[in-house]
Amino acid sequence: MNPRLQNDLLLRAARRQPIERSPVWFMRQAGRYLPEYRAIRARYDFLTLVKTPELAAEVTVQPVDLVGVDAAIIFSDILVVPEAMGMSLKVEEGKGGPRFDEPIRLYTSIRDLKPLDAEKDLGYVMEAIKRSKQLLNGRVPLIGFSGAPWTLFAYMVEGHGSKDFRHAKEMLFTRREDAHLLLRKLSDAVADYLIAQIHAGADIVQIFDTWAGILTPEDFREFSLEYIADIVRKVKQETKNRAPIIVFCKGANHSLGEIAATGTDVVGLDWTIDIAEVKALIGDDVALQGNLDPTILYASEEVITSRVNDIAERMLEPTGHIFNLGHGISPDVDPDNARAFVKAAKEAYAAIRLGA
Amino acid sequence: MNPRLQNDLLLRAARRQPIERSPVWFMRQAGRYLPEYRAIRARYDFLTLVKTPELAAEVTVQPVDLVGVDAAIIFSDILVVPEAMGMSLKVEEGKGGPRFDEPIRLYTSIRDLKPLDAEKDLGYVMEAIKRSKQLLNGRVPLIGFSGAPWTLFAYMVEGHGSKDFRHAKEMLFTRREDAHLLLRKLSDAVADYLIAQIHAGADIVQIFDTWAGILTPEDFREFSLEYIADIVRKVKQETKNRAPIIVFCKGANHSLGEIAATGTDVVGLDWTIDIAEVKALIGDDVALQGNLDPTILYASEEVITSRVNDIAERMLEPTGHIFNLGHGISPDVDPDNARAFVKAAKEAYAAIRLGA
Repeated sequence: MNPRLQNDLLLRAARRQPIERSPVWFMRQAGRYLPEYRAIRARYDFLTLVKTPELAAEVTVQPVDLVGVDAAIIFSDILVVPEAMGMSLKVEEGKGGPRFDEPIRLYTSIRDLKPLDAEKDLGYVMEAIKRSKQLLNGRVPLIGFSGAPWTLFAYMVEGHGSKDFRHAKEMLFTRREDAHLLLRKLSDAVADYLIAQIHAGADIVQIFDTWAGILTPEDFREFSLEYIADIVRKVKQETKNRAPIIVFCKGANHSLGEIAATGTDVVGLDWTIDIAEVKALIGDDVALQGNLDPTILYASEEVITSRVNDIAERMLEPTGHIFNLGHGISPDVDPDNARAFVKAAKEAYAAIRLGA
Repeated sequence: MNPRLQNDLLLRAARRQPIERSPVWFMRQAGRYLPEYRAIRARYDFLTLVKTPELAAEVTVQPVDLVGVDAAIIFSDILVVPEAMGMSLKVEEGKGGPRFDEPIRLYTSIRDLKPLDAEKDLGYVMEAIKRSKQLLNGRVPLIGFSGAPWTLFAYMVEGHGSKDFRHAKEMLFTRREDAHLLLRKLSDAVADYLIAQIHAGADIVQIFDTWAGILTPEDFREFSLEYIADIVRKVKQETKNRAPIIVFCKGANHSLGEIAATGTDVVGLDWTIDIAEVKALIGDDVALQGNLDPTILYASEEVITSRVNDIAERMLEPTGHIFNLGHGISPDVDPDNARAFVKAAKEAYAAIRLGA
């Protein structure tokens, strides 16, 4: 049994229960900006780290100790899902990111993808979650995660990161049935994966739709949101709503109402929309996370604090609010600036009350 | 004297005057997707092409002949402005794009930038405009253009293209006065440049704010839009509103009302917003341009036509509407697909009337 959480701010924020201050964490917080992470990465390649539960758990917990965040997020990569479904994944950092040398282009490749049995095929993630929970020992919640079907689809069909994901788009446009078949398979896999993570001990899960923003509003709703809604439904049903869900569709500000309507507990925001407007639109239905420009971490502590306070001023109260950037933390950020962000976030609501 | 335009659809669309069909053109239409362009580029490097009026005029006119667009846009690059202000520009295509090896980081570098005298410093652009007008011989209007101050600033401070433009952002965040000094200088330069282009014969001008979308709504208004509004005001005043203005702030869908309020004639749209919603919001004040996902040009003629018709259905009438993609046309697009787009655009309003 896992011990009772000493700090459950993130879970209460996600469920819009009363909280004294908003929790704070970073996407990609277990990562290269931390020298302590780089020290471990110097000895193991990325996928070894991901697939060795002792190591994954160690780096998962690092930012809790080193930066003071209110949650840990399991150290992994969204592309372990397609890999577990039979694709050959290569990750060479600094060499243009992860890639599949045999991208999915044909119907037969879609047909031949293995259905995911997450407990078995991604057992190393489940084991890393269990070990992380042990290391955390109830200090803060552990976040599980998956890529959204569309974002996984984009990488699997393109084979690698891209500005326009032209091959992925081409499949949407010209082979719509194939596209839906692949998205359906991915949707089943992602639901199974998140359910397994919750069973393994994840206290809350996030669905990352990193490439939502390259779709038109209509394509987003057909090729992405429909599947996310399905996943949210399934996960909540299968786990009896044990773990709140965060849905972050970067760049999909055209559909925030629709994202909230999936039944997710939290909607993640990038920084190209005013959180006060979003609060007015959907803030009674869901909690809101993010919205800070990631590049403020290159600025001074003063600027960081002022931008963090600005978000608190727009939200007015901590309930239903989670501090985060609108994108993953960059590898070249000074850890002191990440710490300054965390400090400012923890003090923000008290600061604006004093200021008011 | 320039001859009277035989096809002035673009100008009438921009001024929301009655038109029988909406005009169509592409951003980056004079470019690498055309074999005829590549044939010329094989003999001259990019900047030689830009700086040799005969050659620039030749490639400017190519898409009118080869693709059938309703306007030519002068072949140039937004970075000739900072170059003319004293920066050393290198363009090596395929090697990560244009770069400034000595980016602007210090106050003294901002101070030492030469004020632009566009007629003189960018005389080759003016000459290329005059020659293009001669070659066009009144067939279609000629579009002049400039980068917006913020987009120029981003390249000048960063030194090159970037995902997050961290150095440019850092200057905004931590050295706000320096940032405004540079933006003010750029704003003066851009206004002067556009005015000179109109005097040289440009029938309409577009301001490209390619990197608007990496700013928060508040930063966009402070560091970009304020300067664009100033440019629009100046250009209209100095040229007695002779040439309509198009403002395209990619990714700034949070501020479309504010963009329309600058006094621009046309607002350019990327593809992450429903043009029907934009029409309802600002369609009585300005004309609308763009909105089509650039990757549809990788799809079939059938898909291209259907997407083009879809935009016409949302707009309902051609008045105040200009067909375009939501971004520049990609170098690997098949010219036949660009032609299919042009054909579909020319027939779209007739097609939806027939369909209705």
